[in-house]
Amino acid sequence: MNEFTRTIDAGRVMARCDALATLSELSGGLTRVYLSEEQRKANELVLGWMREAGMQAGLDAIGNCAGRYEGDRPGLPCLMLGSHLDTVRDAGRYDGMLGVITAIECVHALDKAGRRLPFALEVIGFADEEGVRFGTTFLGSRAIAGTFKPEALDATDKAGTRLSDAMRGFGLDPARVGDAARRRGAVHAYAELHIEQGPVLEAAGLPVGVVTAINGATRYNFTIEGMAGHAGTVPMALRRDALAAAAECVLAIEACGKGGADLVATVGKLEVMPGATNVIPGRVTFTLDLRSPRDADREKAVAAVVAEIKQVCERRRVKVEAHKLHDEPVAVCAPWMQEAIGAAIASEGVEVRRLPSGAGHDGMAMQAIADIGMLFVRCKSGISHNPAEAISEADAGLATRVLAGFIGNFAPRAAR
Amino acid sequence: MNEFTRTIDAGRVMARCDALATLSELSGGLTRVYLSEEQRKANELVLGWMREAGMQAGLDAIGNCAGRYEGDRPGLPCLMLGSHLDTVRDAGRYDGMLGVITAIECVHALDKAGRRLPFALEVIGFADEEGVRFGTTFLGSRAIAGTFKPEALDATDKAGTRLSDAMRGFGLDPARVGDAARRRGAVHAYAELHIEQGPVLEAAGLPVGVVTAINGATRYNFTIEGMAGHAGTVPMALRRDALAAAAECVLAIEACGKGGADLVATVGKLEVMPGATNVIPGRVTFTLDLRSPRDADREKAVAAVVAEIKQVCERRRVKVEAHKLHDEPVAVCAPWMQEAIGAAIASEGVEVRRLPSGAGHDGMAMQAIADIGMLFVRCKSGISHNPAEAISEADAGLATRVLAGFIGNFAPRAAR
Repeated sequence: MNEFTRTIDAGRVMARCDALATLSELSGGLTRVYLSEEQRKANELVLGWMREAGMQAGLDAIGNCAGRYEGDRPGLPCLMLGSHLDTVRDAGRYDGMLGVITAIECVHALDKAGRRLPFALEVIGFADEEGVRFGTTFLGSRAIAGTFKPEALDATDKAGTRLSDAMRGFGLDPARVGDAARRRGAVHAYAELHIEQGPVLEAAGLPVGVVTAINGATRYNFTIEGMAGHAGTVPMALRRDALAAAAECVLAIEACGKGGADLVATVGKLEVMPGATNVIPGRVTFTLDLRSPRDADREKAVAAVVAEIKQVCERRRVKVEAHKLHDEPVAVCAPWMQEAIGAAIASEGVEVRRLPSGAGHDGMAMQAIADIGMLFVRCKSGISHNPAEAISEADAGLATRVLAGFIGNFAPRAAR
Repeated sequence: MNEFTRTIDAGRVMARCDALATLSELSGGLTRVYLSEEQRKANELVLGWMREAGMQAGLDAIGNCAGRYEGDRPGLPCLMLGSHLDTVRDAGRYDGMLGVITAIECVHALDKAGRRLPFALEVIGFADEEGVRFGTTFLGSRAIAGTFKPEALDATDKAGTRLSDAMRGFGLDPARVGDAARRRGAVHAYAELHIEQGPVLEAAGLPVGVVTAINGATRYNFTIEGMAGHAGTVPMALRRDALAAAAECVLAIEACGKGGADLVATVGKLEVMPGATNVIPGRVTFTLDLRSPRDADREKAVAAVVAEIKQVCERRRVKVEAHKLHDEPVAVCAPWMQEAIGAAIASEGVEVRRLPSGAGHDGMAMQAIADIGMLFVRCKSGISHNPAEAISEADAGLATRVLAGFIGNFAPRAAR
């Protein structure tokens, strides 16, 4: 039934990732942000590939590349595929782009086989997922989901340019962002192929995996106030060392992460004041980033670790302030989408591995209008957001065939 | 025998500390560095007080204020008293100055009583102990001890001014620094009164204490290389978190300090790279400052803690580099000087408490030519190198009487 997947060309997928990677404001690296000249050039390439694959394609009201491949009759609700075309600073070439290019490759294969499905296919290259330029993530997917917040138009970039002015400069009308939103019932589901950005599949020796959920995340900032003093003159027993207290907290946070299935807990930032070799630290600030595929687990772990931090600080006679920065619930991948993606993996003779996504993705916005599913592709050493990001051509080919198999066998549920 | 101490005036001691504190390059605070205009003004004040106390006084070849009160016949070897007149940035008003002013007060009392001793007294206000301007500590005491290194003349300050040029500008001849050095046998001993700069005496409820030794110190810089990664995507079991490893090291260093008598071990500086909330730390650098009044204890503790840090890093599969920055042996206060100072404390009806000095002092340089002794004065909350540095007038009076009693009963040993 899915013999069309035989024409999928992994070499072309890799070459297109390479081609997009040349469109960068950073010479010798890859940085491509929303509404930049580099993005305009990337859009031209992607829209050309979409048309070549048999799609009608153009920019939507927010600047997403949007291609449509009609089903067995025109105007049917769609299965939406996609990922993002913008990058972080000094990025890798697969984060985002791979999902757009593989989706186009699947449509190309269907088109070449002259196959039409009982639903339309849409491929979206989201214009802004990373949020690098305006500090606002998911602008592209929020516009399509109809959850774009008009106040975002007043956000400014580092140069002081407002988003609304940047849109006008790009040829978009900020007053018409709403036009990008899909009407109720127009989208059966949203599926995204993405590199894992972590080492789980590599460690398991598997090229692809089914995402169970995009993890919820809680972020805190902690400030510990101890007592600064001369490192030579204050005896150990009389110290209230803010760094020694923070060190205990860092280990408590690590133990908390290790104590729960699929839980991760990280202290990524820690600053010591005054920060001189011969001065006992008087003040330390540090962050907590805690994620889980289950909101209840995350909330329980956060409560436990914050309580433990307070106990550590009380025992050590230092003050601590805990400030919550961010609290994002889980975006669960629909069980029926997980089943369908898993079946497509099994069809390729690969063991079906389920794993949560620790990183955020456009599905977090898309779940407002459709059930979501994700397919992860193994990446080298789990490295991402880094020029060293790498995948193998063999994995790219297999992952594209899995995506195509999923598309070929897709059976829409009643739209929500 | 020491009835002359009755004329000691603690109010005058405090007022003179206040007067010197007004001579600052920092408005609203106290910063007075070597060879500055503020130091020139401070020297005028101090030399005036010395003369008023019956001393012959002038600047020596390095810029120290040097006053001499002859013994019962002219030209006798001296008991040398003193401390420093330069300050750290945003300093307190007692660190250094109190030792000079109390010594002058003692001579003043002797002079008023018409008393001459079987040795001369010299009071030195060292011109540079802190090393703030040229990054070279103990310039004043090294010149007197004859251990001044001529290459120090090429040191430059932040503005690029060479020490030798600054000396010329101040009216000193850099070629004649050697003139400040005392000939062999000219100094019976060196005694310094100084604020404790730590909280031990306050915690013990004692106004003064006898210093046993100026602690030896070892400093290290450590660099831990782990593996940076996405805080959301790398499972706990696959992490090589440089900060979690460093946190264990910080606690090992703290435990090492707590494990030895009079040992202190501090991590004052710790830096995390890349230092973003959502990135697992890939690299951490931190310092160790470890001090002890016994060199063997210090060396043993350093070896043990460095070995433990290496074990922690091996177990956590992160690399560590250890770089020794500094290794200064103990300067022991001569037992006979400790006895004499202790006897003077007991004469005032105060319990004799012995304690090491965690901070460095001019005695470290002076021990090259004479046995040394130190008397510590309680300071508020152990705070020093800070505008909040404070002592009570009662403690200043008692400490000055103890110093005077020590002087009055001083019995020279054969000069070394």
